[in-house]
Amino acid sequence: MTNLGFVGLGVMGSRIVKRLLDAGYTVTGYNRTKAKAQWLLDLGMRWGETPRTVAEVADVVFTMVTDTRALRDVTEGPNGILAGLGPGKVYIDMSTVSPAASRELAMRVAEKGARMLDAPVSGSVVTLEQGKLSIMVGGDYETFQQVKPILETIGPKVNYVGGNGQAVLMKIATNLNLGAQMLAFSEAVLLAEKGGIPRKTAVEVLLNSVAASPMLCYRGPFVLEMPEEAWFDVNMMQKDLLIALEMGRQLNVPLPTTAIANEFLTAARGMGLDKNDFAIIFEVLARMSGFSPDHKPPAGE
Amino acid sequence: MTNLGFVGLGVMGSRIVKRLLDAGYTVTGYNRTKAKAQWLLDLGMRWGETPRTVAEVADVVFTMVTDTRALRDVTEGPNGILAGLGPGKVYIDMSTVSPAASRELAMRVAEKGARMLDAPVSGSVVTLEQGKLSIMVGGDYETFQQVKPILETIGPKVNYVGGNGQAVLMKIATNLNLGAQMLAFSEAVLLAEKGGIPRKTAVEVLLNSVAASPMLCYRGPFVLEMPEEAWFDVNMMQKDLLIALEMGRQLNVPLPTTAIANEFLTAARGMGLDKNDFAIIFEVLARMSGFSPDHKPPAGE
Amino acid sequence: MTNLGFVGLGVMGSRIVKRLLDAGYTVTGYNRTKAKAQWLLDLGMRWGETPRTVAEVADVVFTMVTDTRALRDVTEGPNGILAGLGPGKVYIDMSTVSPAASRELAMRVAEKGARMLDAPVSGSVVTLEQGKLSIMVGGDYETFQQVKPILETIGPKVNYVGGNGQAVLMKIATNLNLGAQMLAFSEAVLLAEKGGIPRKTAVEVLLNSVAASPMLCYRGPFVLEMPEEAWFDVNMMQKDLLIALEMGRQLNVPLPTTAIANEFLTAARGMGLDKNDFAIIFEVLARMSGFSPDHKPPAGE
Amino acid sequence: MTNLGFVGLGVMGSRIVKRLLDAGYTVTGYNRTKAKAQWLLDLGMRWGETPRTVAEVADVVFTMVTDTRALRDVTEGPNGILAGLGPGKVYIDMSTVSPAASRELAMRVAEKGARMLDAPVSGSVVTLEQGKLSIMVGGDYETFQQVKPILETIGPKVNYVGGNGQAVLMKIATNLNLGAQMLAFSEAVLLAEKGGIPRKTAVEVLLNSVAASPMLCYRGPFVLEMPEEAWFDVNMMQKDLLIALEMGRQLNVPLPTTAIANEFLTAARGMGLDKNDFAIIFEVLARMSGFSPDHKPPAGE
Repeated sequence: MTNLGFVGLGVMGSRIVKRLLDAGYTVTGYNRTKAKAQWLLDLGMRWGETPRTVAEVADVVFTMVTDTRALRDVTEGPNGILAGLGPGKVYIDMSTVSPAASRELAMRVAEKGARMLDAPVSGSVVTLEQGKLSIMVGGDYETFQQVKPILETIGPKVNYVGGNGQAVLMKIATNLNLGAQMLAFSEAVLLAEKGGIPRKTAVEVLLNSVAASPMLCYRGPFVLEMPEEAWFDVNMMQKDLLIALEMGRQLNVPLPTTAIANEFLTAARGMGLDKNDFAIIFEVLARMSGFSPDHKPPAGE
Repeated sequence: MTNLGFVGLGVMGSRIVKRLLDAGYTVTGYNRTKAKAQWLLDLGMRWGETPRTVAEVADVVFTMVTDTRALRDVTEGPNGILAGLGPGKVYIDMSTVSPAASRELAMRVAEKGARMLDAPVSGSVVTLEQGKLSIMVGGDYETFQQVKPILETIGPKVNYVGGNGQAVLMKIATNLNLGAQMLAFSEAVLLAEKGGIPRKTAVEVLLNSVAASPMLCYRGPFVLEMPEEAWFDVNMMQKDLLIALEMGRQLNVPLPTTAIANEFLTAARGMGLDKNDFAIIFEVLARMSGFSPDHKPPAGE
Repeated sequence: MTNLGFVGLGVMGSRIVKRLLDAGYTVTGYNRTKAKAQWLLDLGMRWGETPRTVAEVADVVFTMVTDTRALRDVTEGPNGILAGLGPGKVYIDMSTVSPAASRELAMRVAEKGARMLDAPVSGSVVTLEQGKLSIMVGGDYETFQQVKPILETIGPKVNYVGGNGQAVLMKIATNLNLGAQMLAFSEAVLLAEKGGIPRKTAVEVLLNSVAASPMLCYRGPFVLEMPEEAWFDVNMMQKDLLIALEMGRQLNVPLPTTAIANEFLTAARGMGLDKNDFAIIFEVLARMSGFSPDHKPPAGE
Repeated sequence: MTNLGFVGLGVMGSRIVKRLLDAGYTVTGYNRTKAKAQWLLDLGMRWGETPRTVAEVADVVFTMVTDTRALRDVTEGPNGILAGLGPGKVYIDMSTVSPAASRELAMRVAEKGARMLDAPVSGSVVTLEQGKLSIMVGGDYETFQQVKPILETIGPKVNYVGGNGQAVLMKIATNLNLGAQMLAFSEAVLLAEKGGIPRKTAVEVLLNSVAASPMLCYRGPFVLEMPEEAWFDVNMMQKDLLIALEMGRQLNVPLPTTAIANEFLTAARGMGLDKNDFAIIFEVLARMSGFSPDHKPPAGE
């Protein structure tokens, strides 16, 4: 069976590795903080001293990091993944970066004789654990076919969308829906609540309705109680919306709801709420509707 | 078993009656055009000559019509439902009208000694046939308890939300999400498409993503081919958004995404596309992005 | 010289009457509260006991009231203006009401054998006193020609725009600019201020710039200190924007900036700021940007 | 009298130089295309072979170019302005670039022993020729005092707003008003026109109203006939709005009308109208309102 490598063992990355180990794959992992990976080592994951080492020992190496900068940190330099890649190897980046950054990296990977795929996911830890994760894949089609079984182990839904960078474009396009949906949902909850329906009832009914996307099903209840730790905070959401808006300008697609949702995320930052999950957009609208910041602090702030 | 009456045998109403007949209820129905109800008569539904007759023979009488005006047509006058109501009877309106109109009607029903519930549904014919319809109920709690089994026959999810008019408020709050979600979805599809991903692939991936609400799952494919007959046309959607915006002003809740989506529906009318399902909002944005009306006519217009 | 009548001696109405008296016209006035008109009586204005009396004694009678309801109060009933109108008389309404309401009233005036013009103004007390008021006129062109000299006494700029109701439509179209301009101005001031430029300097520079409309020139300084008494409060501004939005829907014109500004006025109401001049829209945006309601109370609230 | 230098003799720059020559200043100019400067040479302007030469011979040197890239072209390299600056010299940049780019350049100028001011203008050629230009100045206050008389020769209104980069921030804040004002103005004209008022009349009335900013006074008539050559095209306007939106995110100021206007500029590009003056935003809204691109082509496209 294929030798796998995985760089970036965060909340999502680590759970993906567990899934791969459970499926019987040999996985060599690397993370900046080794301690966080101990439970995976206990489950049989091997340790790679650097991203480069991981790339050297694996046939197929994955990365899943926060942004373009973090991606550069693990791919560049003498200890980076690029230094460890060579002919025959496949490198799969699951991070959400800009299409341009992804394409540029793919070219550098090709110069090493290896092939790169961009394979971001739609979904959260909950989606993954429910076995409902969706993976979009960009890059060479033949390479995609080759690693498809591995990707299907991670998420059952795997969609090939086009050449290098197209999957991160598709991911960005997917994520622009999240901001707008969360803002519209907040409008609905507040309208119901100020009209006399208990907030809890309003959320329950909305999550039974045809508007209840999977994202709203897990994030909607946050307007009742914000989680202690953000799943996807204001800055992370805004990072994706900014890439979307930038792409919209390049491709001449007006993005009205994305633009508005983005300004509400800016307001969340203005109000000092940026460490929260982006569901805090609800709080911005609540304060505009007259709820006092003092009397109705969302939990988990 | 309870004797039921049903006034308004349109696309949804007729299918609800079928469900009630299948469950063994005796149903007396009325529709402006009797011919459209023939298949239900064939299935055993009885015919009421007027809305008043239906209310007289039934213990529980339903209405499901297009708007406030149509509701007035079937409730008022010598042949209207109000004329046929009396002590002990329950009247359930499943139409989406304004909370104020619903409350006013409930008071008139009470004057007759009967009790009214507002019970709009979230979902379409597809949702109903999949047995996934969600019903919100407003009115007296005891009355709700009494008819709950009947409502559960229609849609498995039944939520009591408060006094008279609160369910239509909740329905309006639910529906404001639909305009915003459809517009954001259109932004996503066009961004992907103009970035080089086939429209069909973009739709498929989005419908596999965490943004895929049930509404988007059945309406999203309309951007590939518009249905011949609108399920919920531009004017119907706008009617609901206008009630939402009006309620937002009364209750001091700003509704930014609703306001924007509403202006795009106005644009759809400006472009002569108002007879289409409101998914045609996609076409408005497509033309703003440079697609020619001549070269890319949506099917079904 | 023509005998004039004037009903509604508020802030604007009374100053217009003074101007007419200064020009040598005989004016009979009426106001709900007579005391407020004392200074005009001292200047030679005659008193009419009812709107009807005013209409009876005058050749040309004006009204200038707050809204459709107030207009109805002074025109309908046994003591209303309609009861005092007859052949040869001209009735000029300077209020801002909906085009439909204005047209309906014009028809009733015509039934009396009189002719009506709608003649709303663009500008405030300051504009009037500077002799820069602009008047738009709708109705019969011949009638307009007949009273033009009187209107030119009030404001030097007089524009005939079309038949009955067209001037109030034009006024509504004019006023939709105000909300959007004030919101954009607020964005500019806050951007400069949070970037380190003193608010006072930012306002000064903006009022020297090409963006400085007359409205911004007198209202812009309100973001430094709100006036004790609103010139045009949140509810009055929103009344005009709602008519605009309603007309936009009827005429199929999307009004994106109007819709957004309107939602910010709703937020102003939500935050309890509706008694202020609509320049308070600045405060809504300031709070979204992180300014505390406690530490930066606008003066005059 | 001070020896002046001027790099960038475009539409505005050349007219500013003329003004300086008229006031008796000695000016050495440079432009990429010398031919365009012939009329200034005929008026007595001296020619500098490179930006560096201009900086060497002048005590106070100005630049006025299109964007950050063009600014870099004339300041960097062996023939750039920086190479010609030294102790005692003042360098004034009148371009509109990002505050960050301006600050960075100011530091490099300081390293040469010279001092830089950012001094963008608000207004167009018309404003300049009417002697109504407004100049905002950022940088060292003492330096500002020293060159103030020269700046007052260009535009009578000169405002000191703060340290380096603050004037371009103030300019960006000023310009964000333009997009929103033009879009709101378009809403007003179309509402009036579709309501039956001739477009020409609507424009005339609006330009007599309190909403008539100087910018609208010269740009508003463009909705009747677009100029052959754009004064400030879609891309230039969008460049400024993008800097504003970027600053808004950095400084936590939501910019709702700016964000919406920006999306309409994107639509203008999508519709292939980007070579036009940004007043073409009217055409985008007109098409959304049902005007056909075939039947109502704006002049000058």
